[in-house]
Amino acid sequence: MNDHVYKKIELTGTSKTSIEDAVNLAIAKAAESVRNIHWFEVVETRGYVEKGKVTYWQVTVKVGFTLE
Amino acid sequence: MNDHVYKKIELTGTSKTSIEDAVNLAIAKAAESVRNIHWFEVVETRGYVEKGKVTYWQVTVKVGFTLE
Amino acid sequence: MNDHVYKKIELTGTSKTSIEDAVNLAIAKAAESVRNIHWFEVVETRGYVEKGKVTYWQVTVKVGFTLE
Amino acid sequence: MNDHVYKKIELTGTSKTSIEDAVNLAIAKAAESVRNIHWFEVVETRGYVEKGKVTYWQVTVKVGFTLE
Amino acid sequence: MNDHVYKKIELTGTSKTSIEDAVNLAIAKAAESVRNIHWFEVVETRGYVEKGKVTYWQVTVKVGFTLE
Amino acid sequence: MNDHVYKKIELTGTSKTSIEDAVNLAIAKAAESVRNIHWFEVVETRGYVEKGKVTYWQVTVKVGFTLE
Amino acid sequence: MNDHVYKKIELTGTSKTSIEDAVNLAIAKAAESVRNIHWFEVVETRGYVEKGKVTYWQVTVKVGFTLE
Amino acid sequence: MNDHVYKKIELTGTSKTSIEDAVNLAIAKAAESVRNIHWFEVVETRGYVEKGKVTYWQVTVKVGFTLE
Amino acid sequence: MNDHVYKKIELTGTSKTSIEDAVNLAIAKAAESVRNIHWFEVVETRGYVEKGKVTYWQVTVKVGFTLE
Amino acid sequence: MNDHVYKKIELTGTSKTSIEDAVNLAIAKAAESVRNIHWFEVVETRGYVEKGKVTYWQVTVKVGFTLE
Amino acid sequence: MNDHVYKKIELTGTSKTSIEDAVNLAIAKAAESVRNIHWFEVVETRGYVEKGKVTYWQVTVKVGFTLE
Amino acid sequence: MNDHVYKKIELTGTSKTSIEDAVNLAIAKAAESVRNIHWFEVVETRGYVEKGKVTYWQVTVKVGFTLE
Repeated sequence: MNDHVYKKIELTGTSKTSIEDAVNLAIAKAAESVRNIHWFEVVETRGYVEKGKVTYWQVTVKVGFTLE
Repeated sequence: MNDHVYKKIELTGTSKTSIEDAVNLAIAKAAESVRNIHWFEVVETRGYVEKGKVTYWQVTVKVGFTLE
Repeated sequence: MNDHVYKKIELTGTSKTSIEDAVNLAIAKAAESVRNIHWFEVVETRGYVEKGKVTYWQVTVKVGFTLE
Repeated sequence: MNDHVYKKIELTGTSKTSIEDAVNLAIAKAAESVRNIHWFEVVETRGYVEKGKVTYWQVTVKVGFTLE
Repeated sequence: MNDHVYKKIELTGTSKTSIEDAVNLAIAKAAESVRNIHWFEVVETRGYVEKGKVTYWQVTVKVGFTLE
Repeated sequence: MNDHVYKKIELTGTSKTSIEDAVNLAIAKAAESVRNIHWFEVVETRGYVEKGKVTYWQVTVKVGFTLE
Repeated sequence: MNDHVYKKIELTGTSKTSIEDAVNLAIAKAAESVRNIHWFEVVETRGYVEKGKVTYWQVTVKVGFTLE
Repeated sequence: MNDHVYKKIELTGTSKTSIEDAVNLAIAKAAESVRNIHWFEVVETRGYVEKGKVTYWQVTVKVGFTLE
Repeated sequence: MNDHVYKKIELTGTSKTSIEDAVNLAIAKAAESVRNIHWFEVVETRGYVEKGKVTYWQVTVKVGFTLE
Repeated sequence: MNDHVYKKIELTGTSKTSIEDAVNLAIAKAAESVRNIHWFEVVETRGYVEKGKVTYWQVTVKVGFTLE
Repeated sequence: MNDHVYKKIELTGTSKTSIEDAVNLAIAKAAESVRNIHWFEVVETRGYVEKGKVTYWQVTVKVGFTLE
Repeated sequence: MNDHVYKKIELTGTSKTSIEDAVNLAIAKAAESVRNIHWFEVVETRGYVEKGKVTYWQVTVKVGFTLE
């Protein structure tokens, strides 16, 4: 391992079913434009409610990747 | 959208199976007495343990709804 | 209930599938050497990413048990 | 001053023009159903944006009043 | 224990003598209108001062009870 | 509403006159290069002082927009 | 710029009209006895309420100045 | 009440017996050189231990007073 | 004083009467198995309630001691 | 000074030798693609350990620069 | 050791070379006017950047000393 | 990499010369009794002062290692 610099970006993924799926969506979206994603950190979990039911999970993550 | 005022109340839902279910239960209970719930924010995730296994997930959420 | 003293230790469980499984693993591991675990509190949720997919959930919990 | 107990409730006021107006609206709404409001504390300032302009300020306050 | 939902409310008790008395007063007041209080968490300790002496302890607690 | 991913960027707007104007400037600047800004959250309010007067308000916001 | 040492003091300004005025008052008061004030940071925004209206904004700032 | 400016200073009081006494000592000491102390906020509670017993409570408070 | 390394462990003491007694119990328990305890820091104050009265104070402390 | 807008990005620099070098590396890397960097704020200091020795310091900074 | 009261003041030291030097400068400056400084706590580490290089480390510390 | 459980312990290292050395000492001490240390996180930086000079840096780290 050489001296690396990593960048963190903050994304919010959404899902109708679970916290994990919301994170997966955010990572998948980030991977479309960024290579070398190594880790994420959950910073906030929220959600939308309609008619007394959770309709969307919204999970905000910081995503870390190597700056090339 | 007119000028609205929202109220947030803090609830702890419990579930034997998942974090999502604990949140769902809290929202469903709130919806029994409060109309117009719009969103929630997870503020704490805890749980009870018995005989080395998680028996209850306890998830505390702030639930936001329109004050009429 | 008499006057008790509890100790909290901080563990990070990992799982390929879910946040709940990562917590379950940490609790199960703790239960190998500590009796009387009563509760846990999630303090951090992170994960590893490879090829644009989450490969490991890493959930850090504080685990509370009775000091005998 | 006798021994008092105060309750704090959490409200989010909205305004098209300013942070102060959003707070004023939240306090005015609370005063419709609660007497003896004494103070507030700002806990969060957010807003909605449309077409590159702030359309709504959303200010969350904790409002303290005497429990009678 | 079945699946329960708990509510937390935030109260500030006051006392001329001690932190513990201020909490006791807040709990006693809450118990006038709420059944099934199970726990509290201290979130802030403040006080008033007159002529260089503490005249009132003000302790804010979150009080948790079962929603029936 | 489909499953969306949002990105948050952190900007500091400045203004000689008010907190609101500093936020407005940050949002307007962001809107020059980013479409679909939906919300902001104030994270820090600071300012410069010269000759005993506030000369610049500096307000840092997180700005959230849809990733297309 | 040589090596400098700055001191921060914590002040609460009050105003009947706005957050900005409360900060301005705090800075103006500090400037009566301290030279070389360079910046401030808002750390808390609260207020007094009477008869359902905000009567005083109370804004606490940390004020930074050069130690000579 | 006119427009006032308050200053907060941070003190740590110590006591062999209780948290309340440590705060009382800090306030009493502050009152020797500062007039018009109005309130305090507890920001940290620590202590020294010798031979397995608490020998000193150390309570840090922010003390607020009117700037004249 | 030579170069030392200290370890902090996190304990929750309980008491029917006061915050101070709950801390004392935690320290006394720690001293049964750890020598050279030097200080503690209070990190959380909670309690159990039964029939509208506080039955147990639960105070969590970090306890620091020299690693030999 | 005119009204400016600044952007903050979050980077993690690494170094085998010191916290300062890890920050320097992050700033140098940012300067390859961003002009007008004015300041940074350290937000996290971590490190990797191998065979009981620190092999990498990892320092996360927020880097602020003028948006042109 | 008798019952003491300590005061904490907040200073920002600067240095072209290291975090430690910035702290040393702040402590040395404080020692010019305050006797009996016993400890410090780092509360913030920032810095100025020019031409892609760190030109000044700015480290804010709380400095504690005995009130006589 | 299989599913692992990590434990974090909290240590304070001391050094007369630098923050890095204080961390190194804490890690070296931990490595005497714990194998498989992988990372650390700095949680607090403090120090002792005598005669207006820093005599000891005290850096608290959380040290993470694999539970076998």
